[in-house]
This record gives sequence, C-alpha cells and structure tokens, in this order.
Amino acid sequence: MGRQGILIVVSGFSGAGKGTIMKELLCRYEQYALSISATTRAPRPGETEGKEYFFKSQEAFEQMIADGALIEYACYVNHYYGTPRAYVEEKLKEGRDVILEIEIQGARKIKEQFSDAVLLFVTTKDAKTLKERLVKRGTEELSVIEKRLQRAVQESEGVEEYDYLVVNDDLDLCVSQIHSIIESEHQKTDRNREKIKKIREELKGFSKGE
Amino acid sequence: MGRQGILIVVSGFSGAGKGTIMKELLCRYEQYALSISATTRAPRPGETEGKEYFFKSQEAFEQMIADGALIEYACYVNHYYGTPRAYVEEKLKEGRDVILEIEIQGARKIKEQFSDAVLLFVTTKDAKTLKERLVKRGTEELSVIEKRLQRAVQESEGVEEYDYLVVNDDLDLCVSQIHSIIESEHQKTDRNREKIKKIREELKGFSKGE
Repeated sequence: MGRQGILIVVSGFSGAGKGTIMKELLCRYEQYALSISATTRAPRPGETEGKEYFFKSQEAFEQMIADGALIEYACYVNHYYGTPRAYVEEKLKEGRDVILEIEIQGARKIKEQFSDAVLLFVTTKDAKTLKERLVKRGTEELSVIEKRLQRAVQESEGVEEYDYLVVNDDLDLCVSQIHSIIESEHQKTDRNREKIKKIREELKGFSKGE
Repeated sequence: MGRQGILIVVSGFSGAGKGTIMKELLCRYEQYALSISATTRAPRPGETEGKEYFFKSQEAFEQMIADGALIEYACYVNHYYGTPRAYVEEKLKEGRDVILEIEIQGARKIKEQFSDAVLLFVTTKDAKTLKERLVKRGTEELSVIEKRLQRAVQESEGVEEYDYLVVNDDLDLCVSQIHSIIESEHQKTDRNREKIKKIREELKGFSKGE
C-alpha cells in the first residue's frame, strides 16, 4: 500500500449497532484490522481466546501495564480491559487501518498518544430509534432499559470530543460512509508530507532543466 | 437538506486538470455551486458576463472592496480578481457546498475568515506526469513550458497549508474522491453540534421516563 495505517477509534451508544458495523466493515474491505482487547474477566460460554479477547490473569495484566504493553486500559466492574500495543503498532506499520472499539475514557487516552487517530461516534438517527432498539433487544424489565438510557445520556455528553458523527440508519450506507471517512483521512496533506515533498523536489529538478 | 453548506477552496497545479474536475463535479452532483469571480480584465472572445466572470470597471471593483462585498481579492498583471460575498453566503445558507477555484493567497484569506472552509489541492500523480501534460498542452516553446514549471514549483511550496491532497490520475476516481471528502466533512462533529445537542436532550427526557 505504501501508506501508513490510521488508528481508528469507534465508540457509540449501545444499541446503535457498532458490532454489526465492524463485522461488515472488516468483511467488505481488507485494509482494516480489528484490535482485540486483553481482559481479566472470565471467558463467557462461546468466547475464544484471541477472538473476542485475550484472557489474562490479574497478575499478567498488571505486568502488561507495568511494561507499557497496553496503549490504554480501564477498570469496569472489578475487571481490567486494555488494548495491547504490539498488535496495533505492527498493523499500522503494515499500512492497515486499525480499529479500536472502546469507550470514551479509552478514546481520550488514545488521542493523547496518537494525535492523528480518527475518532468516530456511532449513533442511531435519533433518540427515539435508540430507545426502540433498546426496548426490542430482549424481554428485559423496564428498569434495565432505563439504566441503558441513563448510560446513553452519559455517553452522549462526550460526543463533541469525537471527530466524526456516524448515523447508523441504513447499515450498508453507514459502512460505506465510515470507509469514505477513512479514505478521505488518508488524503489529508498531514498524512502525505513525504509525497508532497517528493513532487516538490522533482518539480525543482525539472524547472532547472534536468 | 437541513445542513449548512461547506465552503470549498480548490487550488492546484496548472495542468492538473482542475477545470475538468470542477465541470464533472458540478454535473454529477447537485449539491455544489461554483462561485464566479469578479474581474477588471476585459472579456476574452467567447466569455460571457456572469458565466466565466462578472466583468467590472476598476471603479466598480474598488467600490466592492470598499463595501466589503468581496471575501477575497488579488491583483494579477494589473487586473483585479475577487470573490463576491453575497453569492457565497446565500448558497451556503441554502445548504449548497460552494466551490472557489482560487490560488493560495486567496485560499489563505478564506481560511482566516471561514475557519471551517475545506481546502483541497489538486495534483497529478507525480511531477513527471505534470511536465508531460504541460508539454502536450500545445505547441509552445520550451521557455513557456519552463515558466510553467517554475510556477508549479512556487505553487508546490504552499501545499501543506491545504487540508487535502487530491491526485487526478483517473478523472472519475478523482471526482468521486472529492465528493467523498466533502461528504465526510459534513459528518464532522463540529458541523453537527445541533444534531448532537438534540439527541442528548431527547435521551435525557426518555431517561426521566418521559
């Protein structure tokens, strides 16, 4: 490819369809690589080591922290979750665009370390649609749905810190839009300094009659 | 459309095909409007008032400057060229994306006044191709071609001030890429503050059980 990969952070309301979007994006375009998180929580039935997560003991996870082997980590409900550095840096070097599906605290840490990371926030087209999707999801009690809505309110507070807002109304369109955003980002002059420099040097050569 | 238009500045090497790209872009997508410059130079054969330019007397042009009726202007070879403010602002309000095909001095003035303008620089895939296009253009003497190459060197000095680098190798692809860049820009959170605020307020309502 000859181009440096882009680090992409994807966050969004639960119920906005992030999982489905990522699956489709990875299936449709070869250029993306999905980062797999490390966690200290136990595997759930059906989860495989290295697919959903890298499952670690608390001791091993804390060693990764100490070694700087995680580019971000956080603690939820007594369990650690984090992004292993090696995979991300290796894929970026290969020119792959690496996707991290993480929450806002992680997104902020990424932006601090990788100022050229691209932060996407996925939403439904409006709040009503999000509520309907949360209601439809299962047979949960009203109290559970209300907790999810309260969580969505919290998540909504940070949206302005993201670079792009992606509306998942039509899945196909949404996946194309994300791909377009990333392809457009590749055309930023900041990401093409070497190419610009090369053309400039060549033009200087020609104008001297070389 | 319900969205604010984007002010787009397109510059590029002469010989990179800006004119053809603009024509194709306007033909393919309705959302764009091309700003027409005012000038004090005399119409050339085949040029029509209000199509290629608005032709003005020096006095009338200077009155426009005094009235703040131009968002940028410059003087080349004893003639003024400038962008009338009214048309641009009107089209932006209507939600059209307005294209200014201007040079770097104008681009800088636009960015000062419209910080959310998007600046595109069009290039050939490499310097060799640009030289070939300049050579092929006509039966001009070598001295004319060399002047053009020197101009291209000057133009190349400012490329990093633009937001995006667009390579015109395949016209169709290039036009699609420009359209993708603009559509992606429309998805920036900075351009969707109202929408984000609205979703947040609605979610707050729902989570209170409304």
